Amino acid sequence: MKRVEVSRATVGRIPAYLKHLKNLDPAIVNISATALAKELGLGEVQVRKDLNAVSGAGRPKTGYLVTDLITALESFLCTDQSGNAVIVGAGKLGCALLDYTGFAEYGLSISAAFDKAAESISTAGLAKPVYPMSMLGEYCREKDIYIGIIAVPAAAAQAVCDSLVQSGVRAIWCFAPCRLSVPENIPVQYENMALSLAFLRTKINEI
Amino acid sequence: MKRVEVSRATVGRIPAYLKHLKNLDPAIVNISATALAKELGLGEVQVRKDLNAVSGAGRPKTGYLVTDLITALESFLCTDQSGNAVIVGAGKLGCALLDYTGFAEYGLSISAAFDKAAESISTAGLAKPVYPMSMLGEYCREKDIYIGIIAVPAAAAQAVCDSLVQSGVRAIWCFAPCRLSVPENIPVQYENMALSLAFLRTKINEI
Repeated sequence: MKRVEVSRATVGRIPAYLKHLKNLDPAIVNISATALAKELGLGEVQVRKDLNAVSGAGRPKTGYLVTDLITALESFLCTDQSGNAVIVGAGKLGCALLDYTGFAEYGLSISAAFDKAAESISTAGLAKPVYPMSMLGEYCREKDIYIGIIAVPAAAAQAVCDSLVQSGVRAIWCFAPCRLSVPENIPVQYENMALSLAFLRTKINEI
Repeated sequence: MKRVEVSRATVGRIPAYLKHLKNLDPAIVNISATALAKELGLGEVQVRKDLNAVSGAGRPKTGYLVTDLITALESFLCTDQSGNAVIVGAGKLGCALLDYTGFAEYGLSISAAFDKAAESISTAGLAKPVYPMSMLGEYCREKDIYIGIIAVPAAAAQAVCDSLVQSGVRAIWCFAPCRLSVPENIPVQYENMALSLAFLRTKINEI
């Protein structure tokens, strides 16, 4: 499926649209962008743009069929898919991500972690398994994993990235402070925690 | 000090500028934005804009005094300060942040975590202390903590935020999936992990 390019802010509002639509009185068959904007306290232009990107334009006067809109939003978030990401690196950050429950709202699930020292990691408090690196390729291919999350030190990140790409993942989410070399068709998103905190500090006027 | 508003991307490049300037031959007294851009493989316009935001314009022909530029960049990142942030919530995420060493590059340091169940948290593997919530106010005032990091569930986040504001922090970094109500002069930065991952997924063309 070819996707329309949407902004991060749009993606962020979709769970709110879905929640609201699902809680509507079942007697309500149609909803307009105007009504949805008003009910959620958002700008009408913004809502119209968001829905247009994800579900196409509504019909004049009636707007969207509520059931169709729910289907389109869910399909955008792929809430019907599961087991779609794995983490490499089961240190504190990797385990924190593995255990984080907030992904479900976006139809995302991290199904397992992999670590070169898997056997020495205590999985007592974890709801998901931690496997040795040797199992990465087979697991990803078998479960059709399409996002690989890198939570290893920078020095190990490129080798891990290569393994993930060889295992068939189609996108990389990288927490290691480094730049990765990947095939052109694989998007990479870098998460720099320190940068977020540094940026916040620049917003403080008087230190 | 009143700060110029800078972009997140500018903040992200500052550690690279600093590293490069500090490794220069001590015989080099002046450096121009043009030279710095060339040496780092960055665009000249970008480097000029970055340095201008942080250190003012360079002098015609000579550019910047290297020592002055280092001082300005360090002062911008406040690398001379320490013990400047605390985390509330010592779960997996809180401990991962507490243990993360990447903050130092931006002159940031998280000095302690606070948790309502501090006494039951194993601090064996942690380099920083975890204190009970009752100590938060006194600790923050005594150590002049100016950033509070919220790593508790959404339901507890507003109460924690209020405690942090009362304890004198001047900015909030929030990992709880919620919106906080804060005084106008306190900037808040929300970190939504799930949103980052969902956004990455929208960049995959074919799922």
